[in-house]
This record gives sequence, structure tokens and C-alpha cells, in this order.
Amino acid sequence: MKATVIRRERFSAAHRLYRPDWDDEKNMQVFGKCSWKNYHGHNYLLEVRVTGEIDPETGFVMNLSELKEMIRSVLQEFDHKNLNLDVPEFRELLPSTENLAVVLWNRLRNLIPAKFDLEIYLEETDKNAVVYRGK
Amino acid sequence: MKATVIRRERFSAAHRLYRPDWDDEKNMQVFGKCSWKNYHGHNYLLEVRVTGEIDPETGFVMNLSELKEMIRSVLQEFDHKNLNLDVPEFRELLPSTENLAVVLWNRLRNLIPAKFDLEIYLEETDKNAVVYRGK
Amino acid sequence: MKATVIRRERFSAAHRLYRPDWDDEKNMQVFGKCSWKNYHGHNYLLEVRVTGEIDPETGFVMNLSELKEMIRSVLQEFDHKNLNLDVPEFRELLPSTENLAVVLWNRLRNLIPAKFDLEIYLEETDKNAVVYRGK
Amino acid sequence: MKATVIRRERFSAAHRLYRPDWDDEKNMQVFGKCSWKNYHGHNYLLEVRVTGEIDPETGFVMNLSELKEMIRSVLQEFDHKNLNLDVPEFRELLPSTENLAVVLWNRLRNLIPAKFDLEIYLEETDKNAVVYRGK
Amino acid sequence: MKATVIRRERFSAAHRLYRPDWDDEKNMQVFGKCSWKNYHGHNYLLEVRVTGEIDPETGFVMNLSELKEMIRSVLQEFDHKNLNLDVPEFRELLPSTENLAVVLWNRLRNLIPAKFDLEIYLEETDKNAVVYRGK
Amino acid sequence: MKATVIRRERFSAAHRLYRPDWDDEKNMQVFGKCSWKNYHGHNYLLEVRVTGEIDPETGFVMNLSELKEMIRSVLQEFDHKNLNLDVPEFRELLPSTENLAVVLWNRLRNLIPAKFDLEIYLEETDKNAVVYRGK
Repeated sequence: MKATVIRRERFSAAHRLYRPDWDDEKNMQVFGKCSWKNYHGHNYLLEVRVTGEIDPETGFVMNLSELKEMIRSVLQEFDHKNLNLDVPEFRELLPSTENLAVVLWNRLRNLIPAKFDLEIYLEETDKNAVVYRGK
Repeated sequence: MKATVIRRERFSAAHRLYRPDWDDEKNMQVFGKCSWKNYHGHNYLLEVRVTGEIDPETGFVMNLSELKEMIRSVLQEFDHKNLNLDVPEFRELLPSTENLAVVLWNRLRNLIPAKFDLEIYLEETDKNAVVYRGK
Repeated sequence: MKATVIRRERFSAAHRLYRPDWDDEKNMQVFGKCSWKNYHGHNYLLEVRVTGEIDPETGFVMNLSELKEMIRSVLQEFDHKNLNLDVPEFRELLPSTENLAVVLWNRLRNLIPAKFDLEIYLEETDKNAVVYRGK
Repeated sequence: MKATVIRRERFSAAHRLYRPDWDDEKNMQVFGKCSWKNYHGHNYLLEVRVTGEIDPETGFVMNLSELKEMIRSVLQEFDHKNLNLDVPEFRELLPSTENLAVVLWNRLRNLIPAKFDLEIYLEETDKNAVVYRGK
Repeated sequence: MKATVIRRERFSAAHRLYRPDWDDEKNMQVFGKCSWKNYHGHNYLLEVRVTGEIDPETGFVMNLSELKEMIRSVLQEFDHKNLNLDVPEFRELLPSTENLAVVLWNRLRNLIPAKFDLEIYLEETDKNAVVYRGK
Repeated sequence: MKATVIRRERFSAAHRLYRPDWDDEKNMQVFGKCSWKNYHGHNYLLEVRVTGEIDPETGFVMNLSELKEMIRSVLQEFDHKNLNLDVPEFRELLPSTENLAVVLWNRLRNLIPAKFDLEIYLEETDKNAVVYRGK
């Protein structure tokens, strides 16, 4: 019997959407107030969804206290940080919610055993969110 | 890389579930208090889910400020309106949450480029909701 | 020892803000889209806050199952109704959130024993709400 | 036209995760504070998701007042109960969120007509949840 | 300048409302399903509200990381426990939400410096809650 | 008859808690991860609570569309900005949630007519918030 277990964690970070190869006007036109030079920030909600067989010995798809530790080990490099300046993946990549979901998914995928399917939901504000399933 | 972007908007409308070809007793039996003659109303929550490739130039599946404008252009004919009396589709169609989801999906489908998959989630109350994926 | 007990109930109703002694333009200017002729509606959240001594025999300020029944007996005349057309108090009174809070407070005050203080919080949308304490 | 209708209900129950064939140390290591001998409890949120054709006569996939009654008839054996002691399925089965989802799904599947697909989402806390689709 | 700082923490516990000096019928009549012999449980939300002067050196009324530690040190004796069996105060006292609020307030009052006013909000379910201000 | 009307708006900003007259160690000890040099950010929820007489002509304490415009005119200097670098009040003042509440209250107090009482609630994360009533 397969089920999906879900674990939610929150983190807070600053970021900015800006392409240095575009002028400020073009950045403003595409990214709007998200391109502001001094950064702004969000409380992100990350929901990690892991699908697999229910282990009859424990009744768990995955022990959520282990999953929680994996998520927190990933998030400690994002929480209370500046995504543009502090996260290596964003040196060349725009820290949009979509790209942030991809980066978080890749980091989590390295930690979560391959027998499990992985999907993440990432909320940037109460109105905007992204789901990423690893392509 | 494909992802799903989600945008939420809210609107408030009056409606009534009632079939004129049924007598009041039958309407009451099937639709209960939702059939009340003077209408009642809800704060609807619409969640629009658009799936497509992440554009490497912007980091976006779709620019959410454009998606927001599309949603608002659709919702201005539903917000602070009476679904039965003011929305043409409901002259012959019951404004159930299911049918409202279909109507909103159809209107959004006309605006959102065909290369994107579209799914909507529509909440009528904190207990009742519908998901529609266009058949 | 005094404490405040809180009970939440939800109801859905249609309404319209409109003064017949004003022309449509003035109504539109003051009440905006809330003045629409065919009504619109909301999911209201009512939070009833009762303050009194904790009864040492039951550990209760007030038995919440009794309070729930009082609230529901009041709300059955508002839920899935049209406030303007179906609620006597609004024949001459504008069904603004403020006035609705006053009307609900008055009806609840008649049912809740006088030894308790009564305050209500009434939410019209996730952004707008009113608190009324009985003057 | 197919849609998914969603209905949410809440219930409160006590439980404990503990295998009598393991010693206390092993139970503590795997189940942590969830293994505490005197039980603890949760407010569970159950979200029932039913997928099927929209009936053109009613505009409903399924009448939500019927679905609500089915859910409540199932939940009355779980609400304000002790899952380990009061629910027959958990005499031999660990009442993890995953297994509780399976048990609730099985009971609901018996009541909901076979032409509908059934998925449930079960939230144990605001951080932990499970989705089960019946294998 | 005075302000109120608020910190929320959650915990999960089992309990039962039952007076041994009453027969089961009387217990059922007053406490309903909350009197069930095998306990049930809740996810409690505790909101601690501390009022005092804003310290010009830190910009804080109280350092929330210190407040968080105080709250957690109190809650570790309630979280994943059985209120009736594991918490000394409830050997003779009914673990109603009101009494639980009083007990938590008393424990927090011992830890939070006397120059601050203390109020707590305690939610038992999404519909029921209590506010206690220390008499 | 007096009532309190409540209007909620959200904004997103970056900030940092850091005193240049302290060394990094002292900053870290008091402000923890909030002192990070590259800033982090939050989605703030601002709840404005205005108390006054209900105007019998409109049924309003205050027209919420006017209140909304006042709040938005204030927030446009905070939304998608860096509190430390972009808001003049924080050149010399730590942008703690308490101080941010004071600054927002002062700006709103200038706009909201003096006959109304003003209180604000400001949420920094789902766990931390502040209430300020103007001393």
C-alpha cells in the first residue's frame, strides 16, 4: 500500500529578481517591484511530499522525524539568509519561486532514499506558490 | 524543467440552486437551504494552477503579474455579483461549485496560452471545494 | 477566576448596501460594488466571546455545547438567507458588517445569562472584520 | 465533464504508537514521544476527495450533504475516541497517520458509490499529513 | 512606549472531562463525548501575550527567543502527554480548556519577569478557545 | 454605538537586526540569525483596528475602502523594500517588529481622523506578532 506523507517547514529569506544583462527599465518591466535594488523578503512555506510503500513494521512511509531533520539540514542554508548572495546556486540563476523550488528539490532528492517519489510545494506568499516534481 | 505555478484570488457572490422545472419540495430535498428563494452568498477562493516549462530567461513558468491580471479580468464579472442573474452562463445552468469551476476554467482557458496545462481549485466554504482540469 | 471562552461558527448570506433615499450614483460612490442591485454574498465567521467566572464544579465559564446551541439558534435566521429581505432588523437598517454585528450581539445578549460579559467578532472576508461589545 | 469534489471534516482522538514486541527503548527510538504510555491526541482534519462526472441535472458530482453524512457516520467511531482501544482495526495495527488514512479510506470506500474515484488527505498536525488513494 | 509581543507554540495532548463523584449519566449529560473513558486528544495552540515597555537598546519588549524557550520548557510537560494522568495539577482539577489555561498561565507567570503583563490565548480546536489574564 | 473595524493588508520586506556599536558576537548573542549581514525578509501581516461610533447614515465606523487606501499609501514605502536601507525611521532605529509597529502606527495616526482610536497588530511570522496602541 502506497501513501504520500507530507511535512511542512517554514523559513524566511531575502531575495531580488534582477538580470544584470538587462537595464533597469527592462528589469522593472518584467520583475516589477521584485527587482528592487536593496532586496525584499518572504516567509516561505515548504511542503515536502514523499510517496512510497507503508512499512508494515512501523506504519510509516518514512519516519517524519527523520524527514524533518533532512528538511531542516537543507533549510539551514536558506533560512534567515539572502538567496542571491548566500546560496551558491543563485550566483547565476534567478531566485524565482520556480527556481527556488528546483534548487530545494535537488538538495532534498540527494537526502531522501531513491525508492521514494518526491514532490515539493513552495509558497512565497499567501497568494503565490509553486509545485515541482523533478521534471 | 516543468513546474506548476499557483495564484490565488478571492471573490464574493450571491447565488441560488433551484430548478424551475421542479417544485419547491423537490428543490428543497435536493438542494436544501441552498435553494432559498432570496439567494445567499459566499466568499469564493479561486486557485489557478498553471503547468509548463520554466523559462530560463525569467525563471518563471508564467509571469504571475500577468496571470493575476488575467484572473482579475475574469473575476470582475463574478465578484460582488449574483451568479444566477448576472452571469450569462448561468441562465440555463445551475451555479453549483462544480459548474462555476467549469465556467471559470473555460474563461481562463481562453486567456492562458495553450502551451500551459490548466487546473483550478475553487473553494465555496472552508469545508467545500472543487477541482476541475477541463475534462 | 475569570476567563473568556470563545466559540466560532460560520454562516453564508447575501446582502446589499443601498440607501433608497440616495440616487444610484451616491450609493455607488459610498458603497461601491457592495451596492450592486442583485446582491452579492459572504461566508461570515462569527466569534462569540463570553467572559465570566470559571465554575469550579465543571471547569467551565459556560458549557460550550450550550453556547453552541444558542449561537446556532440565532444563526439559523441568517444562514443561507438574504440579510436585506429576510432579517426583520434590516428592513430599515443597512446590513453593514458593523450593523450585522450589533444585530447578532443583541440577539445573543437575550440568550446568554446577564452575569457574563459578551463581545463578538464578525468577519465578512479574510480582510474585513468588526468587533462589537454592546456599546 | 469530470470534477473532484472535496469535503472537510474534523475529529479529535487519542492514540499511541507502540509495538508490544519491541522493548521501550526501541519504541522510544523509532516512535519518540508518540510512544508515551498514557496516550496523547490530535485534532485530525480529514479531507475527502471524490472524482466523477458532473450530473447535468443537479450540477453535482455528488451531493455534498450526502457525502457529509457518509463521512460523519464513519467519523463517529473515531471522534472523541482512543484509536488504540476503541477502533477494531487498530487492535493489531499501529495507528500511524498512514494507517489511519488507510482505515478511513476503506470505510469510506464501502459507502461511496464505486463509480467515483476516492482519495483522502488526513492532517494530524499543521505540519504533518498523509494522502492515500487506495493503493 | 508599551507594546504587546505574541508568541505561538503548539502541543498535542490527551485528556478526559470526568468527575468521579458523579455517575456516568451525569458526566455524559454535562461533558458529553468529552467524558469518554479511554480519553481523546487535541492539538492545542498556545498564544502567549506579554505586554511591557519597548527596550530602546534592543527594540524588544522581550527577546522572543528567550520567551520561546520559557514556553517550551513549560510545554514539555504537556506535549505528547495525558493531561489527567501526567500533569500534577489535574489530579484534582478537571482539564477543561479554562483550567488548562489557568495552569499554563501560572507556570508561565513564574518564569516571565513580573514587570510584564501576561495574557494567554489557548485554542483547543479551530472552534473553541479560551483567554486568561490571571484573574 | 461604538464598534471596532478591522482591515488586513500584507507586505513583504527585507530587514536585519544589528547594532553597529556592538561587535558581531554581541549582535549574534542578542539578535541571533536575525543579525545576518546580508538581510533576510518576511511577509508581514498588518491588521489595522479602528474604534469609533457607527455612523447611522452609512452603517460604517469608517468606510473600509478609504481605510484600505490609507493603509496602502503607507505600505507602499515598506512593501518590497529593505526596512534598514529604504525607510528613513530605521536609519537610527532597529527594525524589530515592535519598532516597525510603532512606525506604522505613527504614519497611520497621521491619516486616520483623531476621533477614532487606533490599534495595530503586526505579524512577522505565523509564530511572532506585536500589538501596539500608541503608548
